Amino acid sequence: MTGFVSFVSSGPGDPELLTLKAILRLQSADAVLFDDLSSGPILAHAREGADLVGVGKRAGRASPKQDHVSRLLVDYALTGARVVRLKSGDAGIFGRLEEEITALEAAGIGYEIIPGVPSACAAAAFAGIPLTRRLTARRVQFVTGADVTGELPRLNMQALADPEATTVVFMGKRTFPALAAALIAAGLPPDTPALLAESVSHADQTLTRSTIAALAAQLASGSGSSPALILYGPLAGSDHA
Amino acid sequence: MTGFVSFVSSGPGDPELLTLKAILRLQSADAVLFDDLSSGPILAHAREGADLVGVGKRAGRASPKQDHVSRLLVDYALTGARVVRLKSGDAGIFGRLEEEITALEAAGIGYEIIPGVPSACAAAAFAGIPLTRRLTARRVQFVTGADVTGELPRLNMQALADPEATTVVFMGKRTFPALAAALIAAGLPPDTPALLAESVSHADQTLTRSTIAALAAQLASGSGSSPALILYGPLAGSDHA
Repeated sequence: MTGFVSFVSSGPGDPELLTLKAILRLQSADAVLFDDLSSGPILAHAREGADLVGVGKRAGRASPKQDHVSRLLVDYALTGARVVRLKSGDAGIFGRLEEEITALEAAGIGYEIIPGVPSACAAAAFAGIPLTRRLTARRVQFVTGADVTGELPRLNMQALADPEATTVVFMGKRTFPALAAALIAAGLPPDTPALLAESVSHADQTLTRSTIAALAAQLASGSGSSPALILYGPLAGSDHA
Repeated sequence: MTGFVSFVSSGPGDPELLTLKAILRLQSADAVLFDDLSSGPILAHAREGADLVGVGKRAGRASPKQDHVSRLLVDYALTGARVVRLKSGDAGIFGRLEEEITALEAAGIGYEIIPGVPSACAAAAFAGIPLTRRLTARRVQFVTGADVTGELPRLNMQALADPEATTVVFMGKRTFPALAAALIAAGLPPDTPALLAESVSHADQTLTRSTIAALAAQLASGSGSSPALILYGPLAGSDHA
C-alpha cells in the first residue's frame, strides 16, 4: 500500500486566501511538508497528530536540500501516508515541482496538484488594479528574476520590454537593476510604471509605486530580504494603483 | 451613506476552489452581481435575502450590456449596499474590471479586489503539470484570443512564439487556427505540445493533448461552445500531462 501526495497551493500567505480544497487536503493529511514561507495559521488546518515537517526551502534560493525534500516526500508516501506538500502562491508558478514530481513518478507514487491564488494576482488585487486591460495590457507574463545561482536568468527581452504587457517579476528584487538596464536597452521607456510589492498579503505588506528606472536605482542601493514581487507595465501606474 | 463594492474572484468554477475570503464577502453581501459563468453552489454562500442579480455577460463575447452592468453596480452601492461583483477565475485576469472600476470612481464609491484561482492555474494543475519549469519554461504568459469583436487581437508574436515559455490562451478556441498559423510563421515548431482544456474544474471538464498544428486543424473544423483554455509550450507535452 502506497500513499498519495497532494501538492497544495497555500496562496500568498493570508490564511483567508486558502481555498476550501486546500483546507480539506490539510485536514485529511497524515503529514504536511512545508517551506519557511508558509505561515502558522495555514498549518493550523492540519488535524491533531499529523506530522508537520518544515523542509526549510526558501523560494528563489539555491537549495542544496532539494534531493532531501524529494526523498522525504517519497519516504512518507511509501509508508502509506496521505502527504500534503504545501507550496506558497500557486504551486505551478515557480514552485519548482518538477524534481519532486519526477521522484514520485520514479517511485510509482500518485499525486495531484491543487491550484491556488498566485502571489502576483494578490499583489495586483491589493493595489486595486487588474493585471490585464482591454487594448493597453492584453498580455500578462510572470518571470523569475533569479536562477538557481541567484543571478538574472537568460530572458526573452522582446517579450519583457513590451510596453503593452503587464509583467510580474518573482524573486527579482536583487537583480532588478540589471533587468531594468536590459529592458531600457531593449527600448522600454525608463518611466514605465513599476510597483514593488513586499510581503504580499501579510500584516507587514508594503506597496511602493515607482518607475522601472527609479525602482532600479532604489534597489541598487539595498533591497532588504523580504519576499517581493515587481510589477511593471501600463497598469502599474493606473489611477487605481 | 454609500455602499462598497467587492470584486470577488470565484475561481474556475469548482466551488471548492473558492477562497475563504470570497466566501466571507458572499456571506456579508446585500447584493451579488454575477455572470452566466458562475455556478449555483457558489451563490449558495450568499445569505438568505441577498439580491442575486444575473447580469448575463459572457466572458469573451462582445457585450452591449457593459454600461448597464456598471450602472447597476453604482445604483446598488448608492443605496448603501455591500455589493459583491462576482468574476470567474481571477478577477484581474481578463475580467474586464476597468469599465466597472471607472464607473465606481466617478461615483465616489469605494471598492476592493479579492484575488482568486485563475482558470489557467487550474487547467495546468488538473493536467498534472506546473506552468513553469527551471531552464525550459522560465516564463508563463496569458493572452486573450478574442478582442471585443471576437476576432484575434494584435499580439506580440515574438513573445508568443517563444519555445521556452508556457502560454495560455483565454477565449481562443475559435481563433486558434489563425493564431497557430501566425505562431508557426513566426518560427514556433508545428509540433509544439498543446493542451485544450474545456470546462475547467466543472463536472464535464475535458483535457485534450495535442500539438499546435493538430489542434488548429481540429478547431478549424468546429470548436463547440464550451469555455476553453489552450495551453502550449514544452510543459504541455511533459510526461505529466
